[in-house]
Amino acid sequence: MAHRVVIYGGSGNLGRSLITLFNKNNWEVTSIGTRPNEEAAHNIVVSNKEESLEVQGKKVIQNSNSILNGEKYDAILCVAGGFCMGDLAKEDFLETADSMIKKILNPSLIASKLSTVNLKEGGFLMLTGVADLQSTPGFIGYGIAKAAVHHLFNSIASKNGGLPKNTKVMAIQPATIDTPDNRKGMPDADFSQWIPLDLLTRRIFEYTNGTLSVPQGKMVKITTKNGETSFVEL
Amino acid sequence: MAHRVVIYGGSGNLGRSLITLFNKNNWEVTSIGTRPNEEAAHNIVVSNKEESLEVQGKKVIQNSNSILNGEKYDAILCVAGGFCMGDLAKEDFLETADSMIKKILNPSLIASKLSTVNLKEGGFLMLTGVADLQSTPGFIGYGIAKAAVHHLFNSIASKNGGLPKNTKVMAIQPATIDTPDNRKGMPDADFSQWIPLDLLTRRIFEYTNGTLSVPQGKMVKITTKNGETSFVEL
Repeated sequence: MAHRVVIYGGSGNLGRSLITLFNKNNWEVTSIGTRPNEEAAHNIVVSNKEESLEVQGKKVIQNSNSILNGEKYDAILCVAGGFCMGDLAKEDFLETADSMIKKILNPSLIASKLSTVNLKEGGFLMLTGVADLQSTPGFIGYGIAKAAVHHLFNSIASKNGGLPKNTKVMAIQPATIDTPDNRKGMPDADFSQWIPLDLLTRRIFEYTNGTLSVPQGKMVKITTKNGETSFVEL
Repeated sequence: MAHRVVIYGGSGNLGRSLITLFNKNNWEVTSIGTRPNEEAAHNIVVSNKEESLEVQGKKVIQNSNSILNGEKYDAILCVAGGFCMGDLAKEDFLETADSMIKKILNPSLIASKLSTVNLKEGGFLMLTGVADLQSTPGFIGYGIAKAAVHHLFNSIASKNGGLPKNTKVMAIQPATIDTPDNRKGMPDADFSQWIPLDLLTRRIFEYTNGTLSVPQGKMVKITTKNGETSFVEL
């Protein structure tokens, strides 16, 4: 019997990489995102332009009910994200803030909610924050969305947060990941300070399949220095 | 020449109280909120149901341009808010999260943006956070929205956050305020541990009119213990 995983953000760089690895290991993958992932067994496609948080939430739950047909997920991994510069003076400040909330916070909210409906008892929920979040004057929308995700995680990981009994829950806090999109966006950066995508993908897979034990209720800060990647439980 | 102030959240308990006091002192008040405030000289009414963050932002800026007719505001005070219980398991979790973002975070974003367009040089911008914000498993939507406001404040109060030069900026972090709505919602609470509404209103007025100097770039935690209210700069 195949294990079932949701990759929320399955059309992003990290999401695509995860789906390839889970597929290779015969997991049945449902990808959720604003674009379909052709490798995934199932796709749920949402629209940030046309669908509110609530409408997306209902769609995700209904479609996953149909896909599961009475079964449950072993794991729900939210790796949806995005990045956008923007200080307060920028003409489109509100537009970028809105876009970051939709790309970063809303998927985390829906993935968390989905876990109360369609995650197996003892299943695994993972969210994605960011390393070393402090004030972000130059990219405010991004920062507020990540701050909200950190708060969401700390709240659902608390007693009485509403997660199903025995859920394994953690968040990763990665620094910059070495993805094709990031290389395109920052071609002059020192890539040896970025987290190798394959290494991060494998790590998440190992938390999911039980090779690594999940640091229950914790965020794990992930940084790379001169090609060496470290994982620190916070 | 009258001083001009925006009260964002002018139909809430604190907003109404502020508008009464500013009016008494001959300030020209523009109220922004989901309902009009009949005492205010000017009203800009937005709809959380029908208008997105962007649409509300454009409306607020356009309407305030018309009201000001070339003048500028002396102060923009955002005291919009709301409260809603809701852990992850609650049926309408996503709905309440969405509502808290719209009532708490979006007004703070728009008020901040408005200050880059229509605040006088050396004018005053104030946002409203909350005291002692930690994980909020029982009211997650409220918590994530306030966490985002704190992050927004820290970012715009930083160098290069995009505020106009010489803007005075601070945030209040009040604990529970002794308002009619809160007494109705929590009739059995010990009101001597709540912040007296009149006292808080006067304090905000004094920051605004210069009687008290603004703690530049700081949040001020406000709590009341046995009838004694303290203001602590963080």
